[in-house]
Amino acid sequence: MKVTVLGCGRWGTFHAWYADHIGHDVLLWGRKGSKHLQELKETHKNEYLELPERVALTDDIEAALAFADTIVISISSQQLRSFVGELAALGLAGKRFVLCMKGLEIGTGKRLTTVFREAAGENIPVAVWVGPGHVQDFTRGIPNCMVIAAADMQLTKELVEAFSSPLIRFYYGEDLLGTEIGAAAKNVVGLAAGMLDGFGYGSLKGALMARGTRELSRLIEKMGGDKMTVYGLSHLGDYEATLFSPHSNNRRFGEDLITGKPFAKLAEGVYTVEALMDLAREYRVELPICETVYEIVHNHQDPKDQLTQLFMRSTKSELA
Amino acid sequence: MKVTVLGCGRWGTFHAWYADHIGHDVLLWGRKGSKHLQELKETHKNEYLELPERVALTDDIEAALAFADTIVISISSQQLRSFVGELAALGLAGKRFVLCMKGLEIGTGKRLTTVFREAAGENIPVAVWVGPGHVQDFTRGIPNCMVIAAADMQLTKELVEAFSSPLIRFYYGEDLLGTEIGAAAKNVVGLAAGMLDGFGYGSLKGALMARGTRELSRLIEKMGGDKMTVYGLSHLGDYEATLFSPHSNNRRFGEDLITGKPFAKLAEGVYTVEALMDLAREYRVELPICETVYEIVHNHQDPKDQLTQLFMRSTKSELA
Repeated sequence: MKVTVLGCGRWGTFHAWYADHIGHDVLLWGRKGSKHLQELKETHKNEYLELPERVALTDDIEAALAFADTIVISISSQQLRSFVGELAALGLAGKRFVLCMKGLEIGTGKRLTTVFREAAGENIPVAVWVGPGHVQDFTRGIPNCMVIAAADMQLTKELVEAFSSPLIRFYYGEDLLGTEIGAAAKNVVGLAAGMLDGFGYGSLKGALMARGTRELSRLIEKMGGDKMTVYGLSHLGDYEATLFSPHSNNRRFGEDLITGKPFAKLAEGVYTVEALMDLAREYRVELPICETVYEIVHNHQDPKDQLTQLFMRSTKSELA
Repeated sequence: MKVTVLGCGRWGTFHAWYADHIGHDVLLWGRKGSKHLQELKETHKNEYLELPERVALTDDIEAALAFADTIVISISSQQLRSFVGELAALGLAGKRFVLCMKGLEIGTGKRLTTVFREAAGENIPVAVWVGPGHVQDFTRGIPNCMVIAAADMQLTKELVEAFSSPLIRFYYGEDLLGTEIGAAAKNVVGLAAGMLDGFGYGSLKGALMARGTRELSRLIEKMGGDKMTVYGLSHLGDYEATLFSPHSNNRRFGEDLITGKPFAKLAEGVYTVEALMDLAREYRVELPICETVYEIVHNHQDPKDQLTQLFMRSTKSELA
């Protein structure tokens, strides 16, 4: 099968590596002037992996679209709408898309497949591919389990068939809404985990896992999704990478915020928590952990006060 | 309030420290000849904490029972039946018990409150107190959230009232069966986590969390409990301490088993997994992770084969 991957950051390049690794013909696209693309063209590697020379590289978006009918997108989630708008202008008939990215659109709180459909048109098939795993581990041969989800189960099954290997075992995601909200929201829980680490309160990450999943489960159920989805690979299954790994961008951002280290760029969860606050208002769901992260990150409230209050709320039932 | 604590190991001594810390009058009992008790009598401390001199110490079980109406038990779970039998012979009218321990009885698969009631009589009130937290962190003032559960909600509420403090926030456990099964089973998931760590496959702990909770949720539901309980503090909430902490006995046992280090004593999960296999047969529930741990620990199957097979089972729905 031919596969085009759009986006040559850490994960986009991994997806090109992986699609090649399991036997597909791969073209990897990066923006004109992209430093990542330049590095790959010159060295066929980045800091995480080596890309075989047979993986074609281009900055020509028309050529990238023409190359394959199965197209993986891995770019910054807040740029998805405008990017897909550009693609749509070139014509997308006969293509199917896989979004390998996590996030919610700021200002609208919309899921990425919603943004995609609005920009690409209702008839273009689109799925998401999310779940745990570190690029460094995959390229060393350490397997993991991930999820593909789409509104159309037939598309899910075709993509799982096309991308399964001994390195990645896929589960069918049966709740697209819950999968996307959960995948995005785990970055916010990662920020909270980093803040706890920053105070030396890492032992509260257990309670954070139990209570974080619970509030997001409530939100997803109110939005019409399945309350169990958040406990699957797309959210809870990604907690090792997001809440415990020293490499997690979001965890690191939260920790640096507390310890006063400067950080180079905003973590994705900083955007996501803003979108989640909009959803909390719209669906009238209490999200105490997300709200605490929001107050600290966006309203500069005192982190220690906020986090202590969070875990010392009045006694109540676990299921509430 | 007066509180007797029976058992002066790491957690029993912590419970005596905590009950004193929040203002109760406390008597701590240990067996005649107990090295822990001897150390506490001589130094008023152990390797985790300092116990104020006002906490009374005894090896006289009659005096310990007579001291208070609220009695905390923290001993090895496989000894609970015979120990409570000894207590019952002394008369338990008017007493209420809190089991601060985790496990299932080998050979019967019975929960600890069931064992307690069979040994003590049906009319003696009994609750469990479980959830996350490291002794070292509590004594340094780091708060956490825990659960108290009983068949009788009135008892739960009275105990939560008696033991709540800024250091421990309690939730009401509303599903005693699920709370006990989950609290015991987390040690088995901890063994699996340690085995993954031993192979350098720590990034699979995310999938382990998602799939481990799912299979136990199914078991608890089949047994008549609530499928959501395992996602609360008694199980998932304890994963930080059990799956990630270097101090976790069960995680360490699993890791040492893989790396070939000798281990001084069996971890609690080694017993629990045997009881879980009985429950899986009795209730006809598939428990692939528990079964894998059982095959490795009890039948000496090859760990790498077993663990790899586990995560590479055929593709299916996440909710299955």
